[in-house]
Amino acid sequence: MSGNSIGKLFTVTTFGESHGPALGGIVDGCPPGMELSEDDLQIDLDRRKPGTSRHTTQRREADQVKILSGVFEGKTTGTPIGLLIENTDQRSKDYSKIADTFRPGHADYSYQHKYGFRDYRGGGRSSARETAIRVAAGAIAKKYLKQQFNVEIRGYLSQLGPIKIEKIDWDVIDSNPFFCPDADKVAELEAYMDALRKEGESIGAQVDVVARNVPPGLGEPVFDRLDAELAHSLMSINAVKGVEIGDGFACVDSKGTAFRDEITPEGFLSNHAGGVLGGISTGQDVVARIALKPTSSLRLPGKSINRHGESIEVVTHGRHDPCVGIRATPIAEAMMAITLMDHLLRHRAQNIDVDAGLPVLR
Amino acid sequence: MSGNSIGKLFTVTTFGESHGPALGGIVDGCPPGMELSEDDLQIDLDRRKPGTSRHTTQRREADQVKILSGVFEGKTTGTPIGLLIENTDQRSKDYSKIADTFRPGHADYSYQHKYGFRDYRGGGRSSARETAIRVAAGAIAKKYLKQQFNVEIRGYLSQLGPIKIEKIDWDVIDSNPFFCPDADKVAELEAYMDALRKEGESIGAQVDVVARNVPPGLGEPVFDRLDAELAHSLMSINAVKGVEIGDGFACVDSKGTAFRDEITPEGFLSNHAGGVLGGISTGQDVVARIALKPTSSLRLPGKSINRHGESIEVVTHGRHDPCVGIRATPIAEAMMAITLMDHLLRHRAQNIDVDAGLPVLR
Amino acid sequence: MSGNSIGKLFTVTTFGESHGPALGGIVDGCPPGMELSEDDLQIDLDRRKPGTSRHTTQRREADQVKILSGVFEGKTTGTPIGLLIENTDQRSKDYSKIADTFRPGHADYSYQHKYGFRDYRGGGRSSARETAIRVAAGAIAKKYLKQQFNVEIRGYLSQLGPIKIEKIDWDVIDSNPFFCPDADKVAELEAYMDALRKEGESIGAQVDVVARNVPPGLGEPVFDRLDAELAHSLMSINAVKGVEIGDGFACVDSKGTAFRDEITPEGFLSNHAGGVLGGISTGQDVVARIALKPTSSLRLPGKSINRHGESIEVVTHGRHDPCVGIRATPIAEAMMAITLMDHLLRHRAQNIDVDAGLPVLR
Amino acid sequence: MSGNSIGKLFTVTTFGESHGPALGGIVDGCPPGMELSEDDLQIDLDRRKPGTSRHTTQRREADQVKILSGVFEGKTTGTPIGLLIENTDQRSKDYSKIADTFRPGHADYSYQHKYGFRDYRGGGRSSARETAIRVAAGAIAKKYLKQQFNVEIRGYLSQLGPIKIEKIDWDVIDSNPFFCPDADKVAELEAYMDALRKEGESIGAQVDVVARNVPPGLGEPVFDRLDAELAHSLMSINAVKGVEIGDGFACVDSKGTAFRDEITPEGFLSNHAGGVLGGISTGQDVVARIALKPTSSLRLPGKSINRHGESIEVVTHGRHDPCVGIRATPIAEAMMAITLMDHLLRHRAQNIDVDAGLPVLR
Repeated sequence: MSGNSIGKLFTVTTFGESHGPALGGIVDGCPPGMELSEDDLQIDLDRRKPGTSRHTTQRREADQVKILSGVFEGKTTGTPIGLLIENTDQRSKDYSKIADTFRPGHADYSYQHKYGFRDYRGGGRSSARETAIRVAAGAIAKKYLKQQFNVEIRGYLSQLGPIKIEKIDWDVIDSNPFFCPDADKVAELEAYMDALRKEGESIGAQVDVVARNVPPGLGEPVFDRLDAELAHSLMSINAVKGVEIGDGFACVDSKGTAFRDEITPEGFLSNHAGGVLGGISTGQDVVARIALKPTSSLRLPGKSINRHGESIEVVTHGRHDPCVGIRATPIAEAMMAITLMDHLLRHRAQNIDVDAGLPVLR
Repeated sequence: MSGNSIGKLFTVTTFGESHGPALGGIVDGCPPGMELSEDDLQIDLDRRKPGTSRHTTQRREADQVKILSGVFEGKTTGTPIGLLIENTDQRSKDYSKIADTFRPGHADYSYQHKYGFRDYRGGGRSSARETAIRVAAGAIAKKYLKQQFNVEIRGYLSQLGPIKIEKIDWDVIDSNPFFCPDADKVAELEAYMDALRKEGESIGAQVDVVARNVPPGLGEPVFDRLDAELAHSLMSINAVKGVEIGDGFACVDSKGTAFRDEITPEGFLSNHAGGVLGGISTGQDVVARIALKPTSSLRLPGKSINRHGESIEVVTHGRHDPCVGIRATPIAEAMMAITLMDHLLRHRAQNIDVDAGLPVLR
Repeated sequence: MSGNSIGKLFTVTTFGESHGPALGGIVDGCPPGMELSEDDLQIDLDRRKPGTSRHTTQRREADQVKILSGVFEGKTTGTPIGLLIENTDQRSKDYSKIADTFRPGHADYSYQHKYGFRDYRGGGRSSARETAIRVAAGAIAKKYLKQQFNVEIRGYLSQLGPIKIEKIDWDVIDSNPFFCPDADKVAELEAYMDALRKEGESIGAQVDVVARNVPPGLGEPVFDRLDAELAHSLMSINAVKGVEIGDGFACVDSKGTAFRDEITPEGFLSNHAGGVLGGISTGQDVVARIALKPTSSLRLPGKSINRHGESIEVVTHGRHDPCVGIRATPIAEAMMAITLMDHLLRHRAQNIDVDAGLPVLR
Repeated sequence: MSGNSIGKLFTVTTFGESHGPALGGIVDGCPPGMELSEDDLQIDLDRRKPGTSRHTTQRREADQVKILSGVFEGKTTGTPIGLLIENTDQRSKDYSKIADTFRPGHADYSYQHKYGFRDYRGGGRSSARETAIRVAAGAIAKKYLKQQFNVEIRGYLSQLGPIKIEKIDWDVIDSNPFFCPDADKVAELEAYMDALRKEGESIGAQVDVVARNVPPGLGEPVFDRLDAELAHSLMSINAVKGVEIGDGFACVDSKGTAFRDEITPEGFLSNHAGGVLGGISTGQDVVARIALKPTSSLRLPGKSINRHGESIEVVTHGRHDPCVGIRATPIAEAMMAITLMDHLLRHRAQNIDVDAGLPVLR
């Protein structure tokens, strides 16, 4: 398929540009019979949507999703679910100046090489606005996984610039605009962001995602390992530059006896592997982490070239997130949900009758 | 597809178990007319093969590849290339003891849950022996990319346990058994590995891969971004727990002005992005890094359970790599080559006539 | 992918039910830089739309398509093209009676078995209304193929019930409601259809499609042969029960010397093969034929069962086409266009530099 | 994927040329735990293999298949099954003369246009020898479908040139070299073929395939309908020019009341639809029919051109089937098995919990 689809059995395809009339998508492969309404999707869309605090872009979008098909009398029918979100607050004239310039760190230059032609308004297709549809699609996957297996997928901000967040209180995450799981760090984050905005700068961030109660057996060796497909789906989020499963890069300086997760009849003694062995889920928490780069849209001037190859200075106007990592938590959850859902369906297809003869350990 | 294929237009499918009669694979989508012989593939297979130094497994495998189709009168025909490597030195009786046990940190437990049944000899399908075919397939991609665009894909060991390797001398890499690019570090690595073996331990490692002269425009937004598919293909290598593109996790504590790679008519001023913007190659070096966990096959006893859920102690006999990262360099190169090749073909399909009107900057 | 997509590089995905709020789709893989407007799509939509003569369903739908993305300043950008057609004249109450019954010859019974639950209004997803989006997507492919290679894809009604149409006047096809290429047969068709409606019956039909100026080399052996994928795409049209390429079933009683198309330096001497040899286009006209069954929606009662397995009599109300084959011509053209376009892109990817050293013969 | 794979969850990929060292393939997606041996595959391979009567090519090939992976202790493991058949009786020198010529009716000309270069020995990749691997793969699907659902897939010759075979005695089919189900017609077929060989001619044929006990619910609307994918897989067999489902082209002159299959609590009253409604299996027999053209390899001279575009006369030497339809029956069965198996797995993935609340009618 041509690049805008993900998942083999639970397939999400999206369309839409930042400043076009609408974003949309198709979720193909949702099993029939699940209760589903627009409200189910709106919860996560509202968590992601812009303009909910002073720390994100001030573009105002209701991000109100419409379900156009695949649901009848309140239940999924097994046919494709059409999704639509209208763009309402685009201000395209902000962008007319950049038609001929390539903002450093943006996709402008690479899109020009690829397509020779681009919708420059707000980044066009390369804008993170596209992820709204991912979040809507992810909400469908989340609901199914929760209903069938009590799977819970939760993410949180684990670092923002120099501020590391190590205390995890799951109840705190949705009560602050950063998805920060440590209530004590929120003030520090606010102060940091306020200073950053004043400075005209942007900053990177790190987000962790954890899925609980994942059934063992998900993942298809050898190329479609669960961890490999999680890496794919998480790295496909705008601005992500790194993905870790479990302990990730910390394994480089680890010894075998320390890293292998020993097993007892009562359960695993550790989870360095992040819930995946040989590319297949074990039943432990599936744990992933992503690094998000600082946005490149800055009012501080940067060097670049224009379409004629001439040296220019670029200053980015328009409304932007100074830290794209802040709104990334629901997106990361959505991508993990989509990938787990896809693998659940793939697993079922072939292994429906399998009896491991083993307990599920956590 | 069912999990053992990678790539949409340059498609590699593999089969084979560690202790079965043979490994094999099919490369579908290689353009016609390229000169190709088994020798072209053997070069990289010999770099990966076991038993070439005391620091890797002592299993002796010639890893001699046969091309069974797709090449006629010394040239590719455009039809699928069948590859076969016979296993010659399997010692399956070493493994009979583990039929009923689950080695901690191995795929034994998750395979049991998935399939209810497994080829336990040498890890069966989960063994890294499978990567031999990837290396053979990657050599085909490498050759094509080199001939058409002078693309060069090179990897190296950048860290082994606590030993960080920061000096990069490309000429040194293939002259030591570690793919270490710093000649001064080789003695230290040898000493470390000798001590490790004595101890009965294993250790993690980190490998970097760099592709030069990559044409700009490769990568399909939004899900099949080049970096997302690199993350997929690299994370699908056995034991990999993390993938970074460009500066990777270092972006978390970076500011926007520092991270965005500024552009001048003479070229980019930096490459924090690792050659990918908006998921599309820029023409700069494509840079990726992977973390490999320490092997879990240890003669030091570990806690686990058997098939009946009873507590046991596991000691792994057989012949193993104490650091799987050592032989990972040619595998990582192969996976990057396969992914770039696939994206080259995908790019061509749609953008054949595109003129960016821009120079290619490096 | 999950069943609602077709094409590997030019990928069309559709959603929508007959009586839902809208139909929609995504065309992913259209090359950038082609001029495209809604008018380009509307031409074929208007040829397919219902209610244009007394011989088709009297449901009134403007079938006005909106392009929601992928086009900027009048040109395709290379990103996915979102399509939307609102349903405006659904009368769902006509269908409430069939919620618990299975109309013979319809998908009601098989959908019930598959999904356990179905949108019964107007056939839901199984309605041929879904093909409106195919026609819109096909128009994009048609335009590209025409611009790049002067490919012309034309279809016509070649039989309706007992009336065989053998004279082909290409200029006549769009001037009558049957897509009949023989002006002299139109009155006979009208009379036949009028009698049929009076009777309460429906009738089968046959449609031919021909593509001219197709470049040689399209088609991927061995499974994705051009003819195999045409068979797939044409058989996926509602009500189609047979597909022929070239002479089709007439080959069964043909001898080799008669059937093989001899070649001279001036061109082929015949085209029994229908423009495809070994699954690859030759440059001759690509010729296909489909058989469409009579619609099963009849006011004449038929035997069936209800959801409780009880015997019932079914009479279908609502508005229906007494001959679905009449409106099938633009749909068949669209499917051929989509398949040829997909294969054009696939061919390019791998064979861009191929010089056959041969003239293109027609 | 790149053309040599079929099936999304039960995926068969093949490689190999007529005169290369071997044919091979990979079956990916077979569920674990099924007993499987080479003998299971050999039964159908022996039915297809050449040289078993004077009416097929005299090339002698044992077509002995090796299973190289995916089976352990006599059972499938769920990992890919590697298949290999060595070529033993190729006589490539027979073909050196055709290196520069294009046999009319063969793939020579279209391959030259596609690839610019081809393995001309015995048709290379375009040879029907490739289907041996399909037959081996199909045997795996057949076995699974039989064990799980008692599905039986049987084919037969229904016409050869002018000889129509209408009496179906299932017990007779495997007792004559034609797969003819009417014992009374065998002598006529023998006489016809003997005369044909003397004449130097070839002839077309028609093969029917029927699958019994297919579970209802298989098939994915709208593009991956079961009938559409059957059309794809059957049309991908060498020399096939037409595919019908159920009554096929006979529907063109049928009325709705006659064609719709009425349902009673005891079962369907007819099966004009061929076991598929709305693209989904109903539980009735799935019935398909294919037309195979006469082989174009003839010793009677035919007009063509050579690589320089010059007029030549072509006479084909080598050993050929005068009626490729004779050996097509096991191939058609295999392709139907592969497609049904794939759809069984796809159906399971999404509809595992579906209760239609309906009996399965036949």
